[in-house]
Amino acid sequence: MMTATAAHLVAAQQAGLATLDTPSLVVDEDLLRRNISEMAAFAKSVGVALRPHIKTHKTPQVARLQIGAGAVGITCAKLGEAEVMIDQGGIEDILLAYPVVGELKIRRLLGLLDRARVIVALDSREAAAALSRAMVAAGRVLEVYVEVNTGQNRAGVRDGNEAVALGLDIARFKGLRLIGIMTHEGHSHTVSPAEIEATATAAGQAMVETAEAIRGHGIDLPVVSVGSTPAAVFTPTVPGITEMRPGTYVFNDVSTMQWGRIGPDDCALTILATVISRPAPDRAVLDAGSKTLSLERGPAHPGHGYVVGHPRATIVRLSEEHGVVELKPDEPGFAVGDRVSVIPNHVCPTVNLQDHLYIMHEGHLAEAWSIAARGKVQ
Amino acid sequence: MMTATAAHLVAAQQAGLATLDTPSLVVDEDLLRRNISEMAAFAKSVGVALRPHIKTHKTPQVARLQIGAGAVGITCAKLGEAEVMIDQGGIEDILLAYPVVGELKIRRLLGLLDRARVIVALDSREAAAALSRAMVAAGRVLEVYVEVNTGQNRAGVRDGNEAVALGLDIARFKGLRLIGIMTHEGHSHTVSPAEIEATATAAGQAMVETAEAIRGHGIDLPVVSVGSTPAAVFTPTVPGITEMRPGTYVFNDVSTMQWGRIGPDDCALTILATVISRPAPDRAVLDAGSKTLSLERGPAHPGHGYVVGHPRATIVRLSEEHGVVELKPDEPGFAVGDRVSVIPNHVCPTVNLQDHLYIMHEGHLAEAWSIAARGKVQ
Repeated sequence: MMTATAAHLVAAQQAGLATLDTPSLVVDEDLLRRNISEMAAFAKSVGVALRPHIKTHKTPQVARLQIGAGAVGITCAKLGEAEVMIDQGGIEDILLAYPVVGELKIRRLLGLLDRARVIVALDSREAAAALSRAMVAAGRVLEVYVEVNTGQNRAGVRDGNEAVALGLDIARFKGLRLIGIMTHEGHSHTVSPAEIEATATAAGQAMVETAEAIRGHGIDLPVVSVGSTPAAVFTPTVPGITEMRPGTYVFNDVSTMQWGRIGPDDCALTILATVISRPAPDRAVLDAGSKTLSLERGPAHPGHGYVVGHPRATIVRLSEEHGVVELKPDEPGFAVGDRVSVIPNHVCPTVNLQDHLYIMHEGHLAEAWSIAARGKVQ
Repeated sequence: MMTATAAHLVAAQQAGLATLDTPSLVVDEDLLRRNISEMAAFAKSVGVALRPHIKTHKTPQVARLQIGAGAVGITCAKLGEAEVMIDQGGIEDILLAYPVVGELKIRRLLGLLDRARVIVALDSREAAAALSRAMVAAGRVLEVYVEVNTGQNRAGVRDGNEAVALGLDIARFKGLRLIGIMTHEGHSHTVSPAEIEATATAAGQAMVETAEAIRGHGIDLPVVSVGSTPAAVFTPTVPGITEMRPGTYVFNDVSTMQWGRIGPDDCALTILATVISRPAPDRAVLDAGSKTLSLERGPAHPGHGYVVGHPRATIVRLSEEHGVVELKPDEPGFAVGDRVSVIPNHVCPTVNLQDHLYIMHEGHLAEAWSIAARGKVQ
């Protein structure tokens, strides 16, 4: 899949990065903007609202680009991410796609509601009851989605009767306003495009039917929301879906490369790494280990990432600070001190490990953006 | 392995943590100090210097405790870690167990040499030549260990002839002073204690023989250094080993629990997590996913960590913010809002994901220590 173009661009980019130490996360700003505008155009073309998940970038500047391109708001998992996006990104419309549980978190949520629209996804009566009491006491009304499990078997109530029952209960809680249902189709990255299309379409149809059943009880339910980049071209096309929440598309990675729609040339984020050891002709060691690349495996390319311009080189093992590369003894570019660019298997956890994105613009290091919502697990 | 004592202690600890949001890393200070003093006593008893690797804690306060208990200095992987330990921890003696490659890093190393003793481990003539030129230009002499591969097949030159040849070459470079050899035995956490003892002892003997061979060329080589907590009770007992560099022992984890010498009661770090969803009688979801627990697997207990007090509960899947627990429907303590404590599979990458250690002292939250060297991959 590697093209001469990508190798050439990476060589030019690396020349512009001589002042940057390694390992570093390098972002091609033009490609980032292109990926953002293409997904916005797709959402518009199928008539659904785009509410991207910021877990991929965790960076206020990228969220601003997404809003600028037409996103109606953003999706966060944790309150700490929402706090950063409101305080540092000026974002005004956030879905917290995660239950808010516990008094400490409810207090923080109330603080956010003074400053932005925050919708919360729930899947239990216990969480709904506690939020209801707090909202009534504060004289507020919280907008809520019911989280529906369409097969990922993580959180969420089952589509159909279980979701309808919880939706009706939530609609009766004072201080809560049920406005939608959401699911995360949650395809593992090991399935084929045909399987994704089939299961994503089925999940979308189940969501639309569940929404209709709730509406049948006289509840106005404007939002039917679906997630995930792998299913992004399938689920939102199901008639009745109103909102999509992809995340990975801003950068892409080895996982998204596997479906053949995109290649290395579409990956806006690479890890710049240095060869720090060449202990054997068929083995080199990079200064990027699991503390940089993360341990997630990707099926599209064997190993722990895709070494741009070196499709025959495989990152076979990671320890925390070492990336062990197996290669042909005659492979050029792996002497001690040489630099390589690596596309990570799964970009979201990779970004969570670092403090900065280094932004390249037309072959030059333009600026560093703080990954301000990194590590905000609370 | 779970004891009534541990469950009782955890319940008491959680009562003292009502003001702490989740997920959080909680450290039992008394247990931390006990683990540190026991390893120091062991090193003293076998007559080797203790130079612990700080990658486990990345926290200046913990490094100070290690030095206070008798460690001769510390071990770091990256320059960024050494910078933090010198600037914020006042540490004066550091082994950088990692090649320093590239002009940017050499400049940073020179900056550190003004403030502390820094030894660097090398495994290539290329890295040695560049450091030699820089040291000569700066009018300095850098102390060097040769990194030896005793079977891990990561970095390092082979023990025996290859190590001797590189050692002699380094000894001839101006500006470098060869003072030792080091290895990381690097046992995967999947081997039995008997296998660890056999391979660790063999690695120790190979190191001693290699050191003797270098000394046979008239070089004074005072240090023969070995690493790793799994092998800590074996390799340092080989006559001729002079230094040990364990890391994990300060906290312990599921990986160290597997060899039967320690149990949950010896684990000083736990992750405090909240049940945020109970979508099915046999399934609960914690607010600690791979962004908190890390993806490393441990063989001692199935799943992604050990839920203290609930040996029958298994964390079967992690996504970034969700830890999916399989349990018996009648297992108490997993209602929405309940809190649990989890011992991570591998504590080092877990600590790298967070910003603070919350320190418990006699059942109370005493203070928060900044994990100041977190994410210092450069």
